[in-house]
Amino acid sequence: VQEIRERGLRVESVDGDIALADVSVHDRPDTVPPVDVVIVATKTTGNADLAATLRPLVGPGSVVAMFQNGLGVEEQAEAVAPEAVVLGGLCFVCAFQVGPGHIRHVDYGAVTVAEHRTDGTPAGSTEAVDRLVADLQAAGVRADAQPDLVLARWKKLVWNIPYNGLSVVLDAETDDLMRADATRGLVHDLMREVQAGAASQGRVIDDAFVDRMLTDTEAMTPYRTSMRLDFDQHRPLELDAIYRTPLSRAEAAGASMPRTDALCRQLSFLDARNRR
Amino acid sequence: VQEIRERGLRVESVDGDIALADVSVHDRPDTVPPVDVVIVATKTTGNADLAATLRPLVGPGSVVAMFQNGLGVEEQAEAVAPEAVVLGGLCFVCAFQVGPGHIRHVDYGAVTVAEHRTDGTPAGSTEAVDRLVADLQAAGVRADAQPDLVLARWKKLVWNIPYNGLSVVLDAETDDLMRADATRGLVHDLMREVQAGAASQGRVIDDAFVDRMLTDTEAMTPYRTSMRLDFDQHRPLELDAIYRTPLSRAEAAGASMPRTDALCRQLSFLDARNRR
Repeated sequence: VQEIRERGLRVESVDGDIALADVSVHDRPDTVPPVDVVIVATKTTGNADLAATLRPLVGPGSVVAMFQNGLGVEEQAEAVAPEAVVLGGLCFVCAFQVGPGHIRHVDYGAVTVAEHRTDGTPAGSTEAVDRLVADLQAAGVRADAQPDLVLARWKKLVWNIPYNGLSVVLDAETDDLMRADATRGLVHDLMREVQAGAASQGRVIDDAFVDRMLTDTEAMTPYRTSMRLDFDQHRPLELDAIYRTPLSRAEAAGASMPRTDALCRQLSFLDARNRR
Repeated sequence: VQEIRERGLRVESVDGDIALADVSVHDRPDTVPPVDVVIVATKTTGNADLAATLRPLVGPGSVVAMFQNGLGVEEQAEAVAPEAVVLGGLCFVCAFQVGPGHIRHVDYGAVTVAEHRTDGTPAGSTEAVDRLVADLQAAGVRADAQPDLVLARWKKLVWNIPYNGLSVVLDAETDDLMRADATRGLVHDLMREVQAGAASQGRVIDDAFVDRMLTDTEAMTPYRTSMRLDFDQHRPLELDAIYRTPLSRAEAAGASMPRTDALCRQLSFLDARNRR
């Protein structure tokens, strides 16, 4: 916070560098001026603090947009801010923090937004989503609206479940995993399990989407996943949102994700040891 | 070889230390005097040399006993020495080489012997097995005869498949794996898959056996598995015998071992990188 206040925010981006000298920064929610939209862009592992963060910021008509990974995060926002409209945001971006106030953006950059429904049904086109997408686009962000948050979240898991986990367990970057037949096949197997998990929730992800994830990743700038970066920094891994909640929802619906479960158990072991 | 010729063989054992000053050592098969029984106790990863090693040593009536891990090793011996009686030996022992001519034996020490049949059926009680077991017992080795080599080999895989692989992927000893709920559950899941693999080959391994493997391992001296030691020394891992052959036999018989397959793929990746 101090660094950004004094020197601003610096983003080295494949789309052109950005330097913002004057940024409004707050490190506690009660000093933030009134806002229409709260974008929660922290790690899910900090969601225990969500109530304390959101309570001073939201009221009737507020929009809370969860720009996080995995499943169950909108339910957490809804539980602490029931009067707000809760959206989910899916960030398709390869970026990481180089140092305080200094971000490097290496690939992609789109955001998908969809509205959360308590009963898990697709919200369709909504005013809150359309307005946030328009604001993001006006700010130069490639943003699109989606009618079904649950489908969008499972589709993102098709990438996150194999690559995040294997990058930690095998200490590998995406290109390493794609180059070896053994791990390329395992990535594909894990993606098929996520497809089965989505199907158990009534969401169809077709094979062409899975194939595109594989070929897109092969074409991608070699990348150290966010979970691997968390592991390297001895930070907690996002296992609840990315693995345990999807696994328990799929299991409750009778779907089998044995390789995903095995990977989650390996990650649980490594995460506990890594933080000791 | 030179070290053993000059200083003999030293075994530090939980059952009492042994020092053999005068050991008959050969480093090529054609200098070995005539033998009745050849015990092959090398890693399976060296079995490409089996023909060159066995040809000078075996003839009609010879016995070749494969004291190795995994599946398919008797078939390899049979292919290069069709005139020999081929036995399988299963070593239940925690031991490792400290240095040249210097072994440390930390736990267990039994050997199970059974005869190989080309068609994979149980050989039952055979003269070759009974004689080798009697010789081993006379030498102070706890040895027993088993009627069904395939069953005995799958039972040993119940231990080897989870512990060898996870010890490499997670850099963990047996007690680490058993202490954490996540990995203890994964070990159990992998054991159940080996049970299913054995069942696909017409071999019944009951739940009580699996439970005993778990509790025995908990009671065991914490142990760095042989596969982990191989990995640490940048030696090739025994993936064909312990993983790929069991997986392909189970798959051919319609059995599913998804966690084992995932673990094998992880090991393939790590093994290739580790030997580069």
